[in-house]
Amino acid sequence: MTSQNILAAHSRIKNYVKQTPILTSSSINKMTGGHLFFKCENLQKVGAFKARGAFNFLLQLSHVDLANGVVTHSSGNHAQALALAAKTLGTKAYIVMPDNAPTIKVAAVKEYGAEITFCEPNLAAREKTMLEIQKNTKAIFVPPYNHKWIIEGQATSALELLKELQDLDIIIAPVGGGGLLSGTCLANYYFGKAQVFGAEPEGADDAFRSLKQNKRVEHHTPTTIADGLLTTLGPLTFEIMNQHVTDILTVNDHEIIHAMRVIWERMKIIVEPSSAVALAAVLKNPALFRNKKTGLILSGGNVDLNKLPF
Amino acid sequence: MTSQNILAAHSRIKNYVKQTPILTSSSINKMTGGHLFFKCENLQKVGAFKARGAFNFLLQLSHVDLANGVVTHSSGNHAQALALAAKTLGTKAYIVMPDNAPTIKVAAVKEYGAEITFCEPNLAAREKTMLEIQKNTKAIFVPPYNHKWIIEGQATSALELLKELQDLDIIIAPVGGGGLLSGTCLANYYFGKAQVFGAEPEGADDAFRSLKQNKRVEHHTPTTIADGLLTTLGPLTFEIMNQHVTDILTVNDHEIIHAMRVIWERMKIIVEPSSAVALAAVLKNPALFRNKKTGLILSGGNVDLNKLPF
Repeated sequence: MTSQNILAAHSRIKNYVKQTPILTSSSINKMTGGHLFFKCENLQKVGAFKARGAFNFLLQLSHVDLANGVVTHSSGNHAQALALAAKTLGTKAYIVMPDNAPTIKVAAVKEYGAEITFCEPNLAAREKTMLEIQKNTKAIFVPPYNHKWIIEGQATSALELLKELQDLDIIIAPVGGGGLLSGTCLANYYFGKAQVFGAEPEGADDAFRSLKQNKRVEHHTPTTIADGLLTTLGPLTFEIMNQHVTDILTVNDHEIIHAMRVIWERMKIIVEPSSAVALAAVLKNPALFRNKKTGLILSGGNVDLNKLPF
Repeated sequence: MTSQNILAAHSRIKNYVKQTPILTSSSINKMTGGHLFFKCENLQKVGAFKARGAFNFLLQLSHVDLANGVVTHSSGNHAQALALAAKTLGTKAYIVMPDNAPTIKVAAVKEYGAEITFCEPNLAAREKTMLEIQKNTKAIFVPPYNHKWIIEGQATSALELLKELQDLDIIIAPVGGGGLLSGTCLANYYFGKAQVFGAEPEGADDAFRSLKQNKRVEHHTPTTIADGLLTTLGPLTFEIMNQHVTDILTVNDHEIIHAMRVIWERMKIIVEPSSAVALAAVLKNPALFRNKKTGLILSGGNVDLNKLPF
C-alpha cells in the first residue's frame, strides 16, 4: 500500500463521506496536560469511520461486480456502512446478523435498505449463512477490516487529520480488528511524523498481546463494554501494526465509561464506548501525552440511548 | 447597531471563542424535505452561544472598569459564560444564583472560578442580592441579553453562518430573552437575505404573543422543559425582533423532546432542550421549509446526563 493508494482512496470517496471536524476542549486539555485534537468520525455518515472503507471498496468494483450485490456478516457499524454504500451506489447489501443483535442496530441496517439474514450468534453460523447467500446471489464479500481497500479507506481519516495538523507528536486510535489503526499507521508513515498508539480494552487485548509476542493471537474470548472492539486482528492489519505501531495502551471498562462521560459532558458530542477508549488511554498515561500535540480518532457514535452505562 | 458593530464584535472575540462547525444530516434532511445546516453553538466554549456576548461585553470594558469584577444573576449558560470571560480576562465574576439551581450548573460556574451568592428563587431576591454585591464591590452588571454589546456578540454566530452559506433562504433560532434571535436578525439584515424565524416553547410564548400584539408582554409565568428559554423579552430585543422577524413558531414540550432525541441519535451531538426547539419547529411546519436552505442555530448543549427526558 503506497501513499498514492491512500490519496486515491481519499479523492475516490470524498463526495460520498464527510470531511469530519476536528474539535478541541480546553477543559480536557487541562485534565490531561496535553493538547488534544479529536477527529470526529462519530460525526461521519452512519456515525462511524466505517463509511470510509466501505465506500472505498465498493467504488472499486465494476458495474458487473456490483450487479449481484455485496454481502458481509456484522452486527455493528460495518453493516450500516456497507448498507449505506450499497444503497448509494444502486446495489443490494446482504447482511448476516446474529439473532441476538441489538434492535437498534437491526433497525439502522434495515433503514439503509439492506436485506438482513439472522443466524445463531457464533462465527461458524455467521460464515455458513454468508456462504449460502454468496452461493445463491453471487454477491461479493466485503470484509470488515482485513483488506487493502478497507485499510486504505480508513487511512483517510488520519490523512485529513495530518493535512490540518502537520506537527502532531502522537496519534492514538482504538483497535479492534485493526482496520482503523493500521490505516492510521500508513497515513502517518507517508504523511506525518507522529508516534502512533493503539488503545484497546483490557478485556479484548489481542492486539496488545499480539504485538508483545510478535505473533498474532488468533483466538480469544473478549469481553468489554466497547462492543466495536471485540474483533480479532487479521493477518494484514497485524503485519502493518507490528511494523508501525509505537505501543498499545490498554484500559478497563470502568476507565472507558469514565472517558465516555467526560467526552459527552465536556465536548457535547456522543461517542460510543469503543471511541472513548482512546481518551481513556490518554487519561491513564498522562506522562506520555503531557505537553504533546496528540490527535485522537473518535471512531463512532452509535449507542442505544435507552441503555447508557451512566 | 450597525454592520460595523457586528464585524467589530466578531474580530474582537474571535481569539476567545470558537468558530463553531456547521453540520448537516442526510437523514434529518429526508425527514423534513429541506436542506438544513446546523450551526453548533452547543460546541461553543461553555457549551453555549452565551460565550460570544459575554466576551464581547467584557472586552469593551477598560482595565479600571474590570478591576472591581463583574456581576450577574443567572442560573444558566450566561452565568458560565460570564465566569469564563471574567477568568480569562483576569477579573472576578460574582454570580447570584437561586438556591434551587441545579447542582451541575452550580458546579460548572464554580469550576470557572466565579464567586456564587445564593438567594431565594425569585426575581426580587435575585435583584436585591445583586444590588448588595454591586454596592459592596462596585462590580459591573453584565445583563444576559437586553444590551447592545450582548446582542452584537450573539449576532456573530449568524454572521459566521452567513459567511459560509450566503444563499440561505431561512434562519431559525430559539428565543428566550431574545439576545440570540435579535442578533441573528441584525446579522441577516446586514449580511444575508434570509427570512428569520424564532422558535419558542408554547409554555413560554411571550415572544410569540408580543409580536402578535405588537407590544411587549412584560409578565408571564413560563413553564417548559426548555429551561434556557424561560426569560422574557427585553425592550431592546423586542424592538429589533418586531422590526425584523418573519414569524415565531411555537412547539410543545413533547415536540421539543422528540426533536432533541432526533438530534442526539442522528447527529451524534448533545443539545439541551432549548436548542432542540428550532428543529421541533421545522418538523412541525414542513411546508415552510420544504426544498429550502435553512440555517438552524443550536444554542447550547448543557444538560444533566442523570436527568435525561428520554
